[in-house]
Amino acid sequence: MSNPTAAMLVIGDEILSGRTRDANMYHLAGRLAQIGVDLREVRIVADDQQQIIAALNALRGAYDSVFTSGGIGPTHDDITADCVAAAFGVGIDVRADARKILATNYPEGEAALNPARLRMARIPDGATLIDNPVSKAPGFNLGNVYVMAGVPAVFTAMVESVLPTLVGGAPLLSEAVRIDRGESDVAGALGGIAGQYPDVAIGSYPFQRDGRYGTNIVLRSVDRDQLDAATNAVRALI
Amino acid sequence: MSNPTAAMLVIGDEILSGRTRDANMYHLAGRLAQIGVDLREVRIVADDQQQIIAALNALRGAYDSVFTSGGIGPTHDDITADCVAAAFGVGIDVRADARKILATNYPEGEAALNPARLRMARIPDGATLIDNPVSKAPGFNLGNVYVMAGVPAVFTAMVESVLPTLVGGAPLLSEAVRIDRGESDVAGALGGIAGQYPDVAIGSYPFQRDGRYGTNIVLRSVDRDQLDAATNAVRALI
Repeated sequence: MSNPTAAMLVIGDEILSGRTRDANMYHLAGRLAQIGVDLREVRIVADDQQQIIAALNALRGAYDSVFTSGGIGPTHDDITADCVAAAFGVGIDVRADARKILATNYPEGEAALNPARLRMARIPDGATLIDNPVSKAPGFNLGNVYVMAGVPAVFTAMVESVLPTLVGGAPLLSEAVRIDRGESDVAGALGGIAGQYPDVAIGSYPFQRDGRYGTNIVLRSVDRDQLDAATNAVRALI
Repeated sequence: MSNPTAAMLVIGDEILSGRTRDANMYHLAGRLAQIGVDLREVRIVADDQQQIIAALNALRGAYDSVFTSGGIGPTHDDITADCVAAAFGVGIDVRADARKILATNYPEGEAALNPARLRMARIPDGATLIDNPVSKAPGFNLGNVYVMAGVPAVFTAMVESVLPTLVGGAPLLSEAVRIDRGESDVAGALGGIAGQYPDVAIGSYPFQRDGRYGTNIVLRSVDRDQLDAATNAVRALI
């Protein structure tokens, strides 16, 4: 598999404290799989400058693209844009085009841009804006890093603004086979099939329902022929 | 805040491919907050030996404890136990006590332990077993790393086996205040309150419902007096 690789960085105390169940990671993972980008790693860190910068630098060096979620609003704990600028070693300031877009979100226009709102127009030098059709305040792209909002409706919209600009690979295809036996009954045979089809990723997910054990076998590949052959081999186990 | 710190490592292709929405992280985050352990970072990696070992070593060096989820079943892609042994530089083999516990899960007892099932009794040298009342196959604790299953019902049960053995801190207390104004209207005042109460973490979470903007302000602290004072200051903004 030589698809482009990606990582995600989720920024926010609310996930780590257990208050909020993440939705953005699940959404992005599904969308990236559809367009043939392999999400390889996710990190979730607090609203902490050192943690954010360290994670950004580790991930942007290791993967083709990095998507961040959270920390670009108007409040004191929204420090993502400044951390991205620091990670890249570039300046950051309120930018005229971002300010103008932001003003369109308020009936009073520019007059509505108090200092808190103006924080949302702070863009690192050299970045490209990401369109936010939901609430205007833009995300931005710098190098291979895509910085997006944490509010799920806005994050989702920004993802759709970004995806057409990415070079994807072959979409990841998948098949699922349900076996009414426990995982350990088929593990040996599955290992053999996995060895025979190295381009197919085979996962097994045991479940227990109404007191009976079963296993969902999920096969994934970018190669349709290999996927079909491996899926048939798994079906033969039933 | 000098509460003990923790990190979590979620291991599994099924989360990164978007097939499964994580439930274990959300569960653990909530339980750790209740007993006064600060979850500071989460990483999600694929069933990949190098990735797992690198993440384990980074996290166990940086936080007081590390909790892992996934990759300890009977199939070829269950490589977590071997990766933990490699990360600590210790041996790993089928262990008599783990084997005995595992056998109790099958009516046929020891006779049921085929090679796949025996993988679940492979325990790194020096580890302590973690009780699994749901399906017997044990997790284990080595150093400051707690290795648990990915199946949510089993993960949840193992967490309850582990938590009483942890030294917790003061439970994290929280209060929430709903304000029927946009986040940027209160951001300036919130920043002031945050500066005044450094021991209280203040997060703001904007929402839009029926076309109206609002903001949930969530305050968290281990200090009840500080929390109440900061919450009153936020309520005065309404």
